[in-house]
Amino acid sequence: MSPFCALVDWGTSSFRLWLVDAAGTVLCERRSEEGMLSAGPDGFATILETHLTALDAPSDLPVVACGMVGARQGWAEAPYVDTPASMAAIAANALRVDHARPAYLLPGVAQRLAEAPDVMRGEETQLVGLPPVKGTQIVCLPGTHSKWVALGDGRIERFATFITGDLFAAASRHTILRHSVADPAAPFDPERFSAAFLAGLERPAELANRLFAIRAGGLLGLGENGDGGSAVSGLLVGLEFAGARSRLGRIESMTLVASGPLLEIYRMAAEAAGIAVVPADAEDAVRAGLLACAREILS
Amino acid sequence: MSPFCALVDWGTSSFRLWLVDAAGTVLCERRSEEGMLSAGPDGFATILETHLTALDAPSDLPVVACGMVGARQGWAEAPYVDTPASMAAIAANALRVDHARPAYLLPGVAQRLAEAPDVMRGEETQLVGLPPVKGTQIVCLPGTHSKWVALGDGRIERFATFITGDLFAAASRHTILRHSVADPAAPFDPERFSAAFLAGLERPAELANRLFAIRAGGLLGLGENGDGGSAVSGLLVGLEFAGARSRLGRIESMTLVASGPLLEIYRMAAEAAGIAVVPADAEDAVRAGLLACAREILS
Repeated sequence: MSPFCALVDWGTSSFRLWLVDAAGTVLCERRSEEGMLSAGPDGFATILETHLTALDAPSDLPVVACGMVGARQGWAEAPYVDTPASMAAIAANALRVDHARPAYLLPGVAQRLAEAPDVMRGEETQLVGLPPVKGTQIVCLPGTHSKWVALGDGRIERFATFITGDLFAAASRHTILRHSVADPAAPFDPERFSAAFLAGLERPAELANRLFAIRAGGLLGLGENGDGGSAVSGLLVGLEFAGARSRLGRIESMTLVASGPLLEIYRMAAEAAGIAVVPADAEDAVRAGLLACAREILS
Repeated sequence: MSPFCALVDWGTSSFRLWLVDAAGTVLCERRSEEGMLSAGPDGFATILETHLTALDAPSDLPVVACGMVGARQGWAEAPYVDTPASMAAIAANALRVDHARPAYLLPGVAQRLAEAPDVMRGEETQLVGLPPVKGTQIVCLPGTHSKWVALGDGRIERFATFITGDLFAAASRHTILRHSVADPAAPFDPERFSAAFLAGLERPAELANRLFAIRAGGLLGLGENGDGGSAVSGLLVGLEFAGARSRLGRIESMTLVASGPLLEIYRMAAEAAGIAVVPADAEDAVRAGLLACAREILS
């Protein structure tokens, strides 16, 4: 079967490429850690062609890529599409880069609201690739910078980014909590996470105090024992859920785009918060979104 | 005039010593950066005697010290006194260390509540040294680990520590905000601080999102320009004030133990939050507290 195009998910620190046929079936794939950071300003074309050559891809096979490859520090800047953003608008604003073969970078999405400015780059393609839902749908994409998105008939209407994972790493390593989160590989403690999650959700104002209390409780031999990482994580994920409610309103159900431990942690959190969860695989979603945009661009 | 005793404020990274007469008048003083961290396990006695020799202090002059010198990692551990903690209890629990001259380390204070464990070491002496107030008094001691304390007739009834300054440093240097807080010495922007302070105070749940919005607003050219440090600081101090209300109840006035830029920032914050402020000098307070305890211990 001859390939229809190459789809590339090219983030800050990872590269994933799939050759697909016209029906969207994956013919072969490549993965590496040659993300934006390791590519450097001139390395993008070389990395891409090395992988395509390894797959014997025809020299005129088109490429559609999403993620940080389209950021200002990437291969070329594909300017943001503004909210509300539809799949058609995202595909229509793909940037064709100066390259021997047809190669397109999908744009990110910007929310140009003075009181809630926000940006995404890469997640918009995952959102495009989710199974279509009529009406309003809340989507949570947890991570270093978790995103909560309100879709309306599949269109990106409004969203909010939370630096939860980024704050967790910084607080665990670079504040007094480094004494309480000694071992980043310590086993996850669901009970400790859940208690802290509810505290973070219900009393978000007390975050900076409750973080200190993890340390103080350890010093005094009060509260739970063991590694404090689950408690720090619980407080910060609870704060994120409280913030998502504050930004997007009441949430009864959500699509959760995650896998592995993050899926389990956010599923547990959603259950404690009374939110029904429909899980979605991030990689399936990004590939489906890339394919949908590729069909639009290459038709 | 012959000295009555030596008073020492010995913290994590600083050493301050005063010789005082029986009336509490300062005869002479010494300051250095030989805090607990640089003293090492065996260095405390040597550092103390070097400073006392430089001042020609009599070899039997007693010493009363407070701060991290009395922590587990300090010269010797002066175990915590529990809340509610009076000055008499603090003085009565001073630890006499094994040393050629009489030398006492004041204990810290512990709040052994399972839902709000907390500790202080050094601040209790500042609190003892504040001008006496009848009834309830709220005291705020801002810093890396800000403390908010409810005193009742001068007794430490309840308190809450917030890792505000610690979080500010970690978030500014070790999260995506490092791109927005480029210059730690950038001039303080009162308008940007105040707007962020109110957002942090009124919408604490949105903290992790509003931190990201500082970065996104910069990328999109929305919101205020310039260094983001004042906005990060405003959000975190606002969160702290919201947390202090949540932990200690409604606050109409407070004693603010601070000096320099921190005094000005917290005074501005208190005004925006509708809290009347009585400023108090931290160094005067700790010296008065050490003197009061020394009189109790040495009488």
